[in-house]
Amino acid sequence: MPHTAELIAVGTELLLGNICNTDAQMISQALSALGINVYYHTVVGDNPERVRAAVEVARHRADIIITTGGLGPTCDDLTKQALADAFGKPLVFDERSAGRIQEYFRLKLPHRVMTDNNLQQAMLPEGCTVLDNDWGTAPGCAFEAEGVRVIMLPGPPRECRAMLEHRVVPYLKFLSDGVIESRTLKLYGIGEAAMEAQLREEMLSMHNPTLAPYAKEGECELRITAKAPTEAEAQAMLEPVEQELRGRFGDLVYGVDVGSLEEQVSRLLRAQGLTLSTAESCTGGLAAKRMTDLAGASQVFKGGVVCYTNEVKHSALGVPQETLDTFGAVSPQTAQALALGACRVLGSDLAVSITGVAGPDPDDRGNPVGLVYIGLAHGDRVWVKETHLGTARDRVRNSAVLAAFDMVRRRLTGLPVLPEAAPGKDAP
Amino acid sequence: MPHTAELIAVGTELLLGNICNTDAQMISQALSALGINVYYHTVVGDNPERVRAAVEVARHRADIIITTGGLGPTCDDLTKQALADAFGKPLVFDERSAGRIQEYFRLKLPHRVMTDNNLQQAMLPEGCTVLDNDWGTAPGCAFEAEGVRVIMLPGPPRECRAMLEHRVVPYLKFLSDGVIESRTLKLYGIGEAAMEAQLREEMLSMHNPTLAPYAKEGECELRITAKAPTEAEAQAMLEPVEQELRGRFGDLVYGVDVGSLEEQVSRLLRAQGLTLSTAESCTGGLAAKRMTDLAGASQVFKGGVVCYTNEVKHSALGVPQETLDTFGAVSPQTAQALALGACRVLGSDLAVSITGVAGPDPDDRGNPVGLVYIGLAHGDRVWVKETHLGTARDRVRNSAVLAAFDMVRRRLTGLPVLPEAAPGKDAP
Repeated sequence: MPHTAELIAVGTELLLGNICNTDAQMISQALSALGINVYYHTVVGDNPERVRAAVEVARHRADIIITTGGLGPTCDDLTKQALADAFGKPLVFDERSAGRIQEYFRLKLPHRVMTDNNLQQAMLPEGCTVLDNDWGTAPGCAFEAEGVRVIMLPGPPRECRAMLEHRVVPYLKFLSDGVIESRTLKLYGIGEAAMEAQLREEMLSMHNPTLAPYAKEGECELRITAKAPTEAEAQAMLEPVEQELRGRFGDLVYGVDVGSLEEQVSRLLRAQGLTLSTAESCTGGLAAKRMTDLAGASQVFKGGVVCYTNEVKHSALGVPQETLDTFGAVSPQTAQALALGACRVLGSDLAVSITGVAGPDPDDRGNPVGLVYIGLAHGDRVWVKETHLGTARDRVRNSAVLAAFDMVRRRLTGLPVLPEAAPGKDAP
Repeated sequence: MPHTAELIAVGTELLLGNICNTDAQMISQALSALGINVYYHTVVGDNPERVRAAVEVARHRADIIITTGGLGPTCDDLTKQALADAFGKPLVFDERSAGRIQEYFRLKLPHRVMTDNNLQQAMLPEGCTVLDNDWGTAPGCAFEAEGVRVIMLPGPPRECRAMLEHRVVPYLKFLSDGVIESRTLKLYGIGEAAMEAQLREEMLSMHNPTLAPYAKEGECELRITAKAPTEAEAQAMLEPVEQELRGRFGDLVYGVDVGSLEEQVSRLLRAQGLTLSTAESCTGGLAAKRMTDLAGASQVFKGGVVCYTNEVKHSALGVPQETLDTFGAVSPQTAQALALGACRVLGSDLAVSITGVAGPDPDDRGNPVGLVYIGLAHGDRVWVKETHLGTARDRVRNSAVLAAFDMVRRRLTGLPVLPEAAPGKDAP
């Protein structure tokens, strides 16, 4: 029988809107991949009575309760106390955890003073499995009582993410009779609605493997998940579905089990021993930032120029003054000169350029918000794409960067850099 | 008596972790500013029974229920049906809303075919106040029954945000007897724990105005909120608290009611008619990206160079090869040359430079992860700060950018650019 989990996030800062409950999102994704149903998320403040009330509701509709937050030194162990009370378990001092907390302070926070409050974090429900926290001070814990498995995790997303991956997923995998494997196809160049429209029938009829569509800004994902007695069997079930989807979506699929389009671009550059650079006007460094989010970027990324003024376009990247005067900064001619200039100045094999109007206002030549020219240079060849990316500043910038990376991806995989618009392919 | 609201988000995509419940965050912020308590958020899937169960729980602990999602054409009016059932109201066809939906399709979605499902969105609880949706097809609605105010909003964050601002806040303002005003002090250079430690007593004893501390990565906020019969009276209550906090935290306060450190830097530059540029190694464009997140950045930001390799540091920004050979890329000497080079090459009045080890590995000279040198040039003056920013790549990059912006802020407000470490100030 499939298990049902409920997530309870404890933190007044969530109810005040100070932060968003990203922990719930990442835990939900992990549980979904494990085949565990999630029917409810609850968020409750730093208030013992209301935490207890939330636990009372949850224990009757789920057999796994995962809490996040309320383990910190400033909240009096609120969550541990509430859950321990609810399941009749005393909190006891865990010597090993106390030692780990002291060690963490000594090594990672040498400039901070450890207080007794911090040692309070070593009070844990009697008989629990301690989930060691290598990423912060508060240990997590898990116990089973009255038919419910309780797992408590620290709230800070960086800690929660690491604890989830390294402690909770291994712990919960044992609940699953069999092996769950998944593959995620990443698509660029198709909208979520168009992708779903092409899938609807399969989505409804498939149970194992299952197919789950996800949309992120400007990108889509399809996650195939199979459950089988062995990993080999699960993989064998995934393979034909992946092949069918690849056949259906063709070169819109930019990768499988890859984190992002820029990660795929980095992989392709590395495999081919090539380097990239960027020349950015309206995206103001976002493309470079994305490329360097990845550790090890220096092997494939030479650098970039953020040329927010015509002056810099001319002086730093050698765009001819005549080009800027005649065609303006937002033009295919400038995009072309920027890409070639970046290759030359930054000494890279390929370069992308992005110049357009991010908004909120049209530029001084009357070019509308959302008009962006994207250039790709490779040696002395150069391509320019004209895009219209809506009117929201953030979205224009994000979409422009994705479009630029996709041109690199297409070039490095031998596809036409500028595909003709095909039916069924949304403009991203 | 203060009102209590509960938020119910309807959407299986939330439970699968496909999206994060950002609607809850923005609504919570708005309610908090209105002085309305929020004790719980609930997330439930596209399942009529479970939505009804969530409503049953909520109606007994809140007098305002705000739902998001489940109004779209693909979910059979799930949310409206559940809430209408719970409060004994039939759904009736609203001609005016139907007309608006048809008009929306004609004007905004000419390439899409309107289906009967879309018109289904015009079915609304009898006697409700229709909340017109100018940003999408599904109208929102509000009604009062059995002592509970129910407000239903569309789920897509863009629509939800606009509906909240233009429909819900005006509607709920009438509930508040009096005026609520707030000011937010923004601090850089102090950790949350240190800030709270200096405040604890006041925080506990103040009821009106209230004081709420918030922490964002590397920054802290203090929000003072006062409720009074008139705006002037509320402001008069805020003033002495602001002054006391400013006295207490001194130049750690970088602004009041300002969005971010970079926004404050932009304001200062604009006010003084100065321009900035950036030279970034380990932050890879993040500082430039942040500066250009703000509309109108081109008035104060000239551009930047992302110099991820020594080659680019030398060729694009004129760092002497000897400096790179002798001291290495991660050195005060290189930071200094980068900042001066950026001023010169990009033609700005000021420039910041950032060079360090973002990780995950030490650099080839054995400099540890987290060691970052930050330079600031203003004309021919130059300052360099050595920082140690932990070991997490994202955090190193983010902290380095904040440290750089703070140096600019200090310079432009006549403070020493490099303050001596003072007791009670955490290294950020």
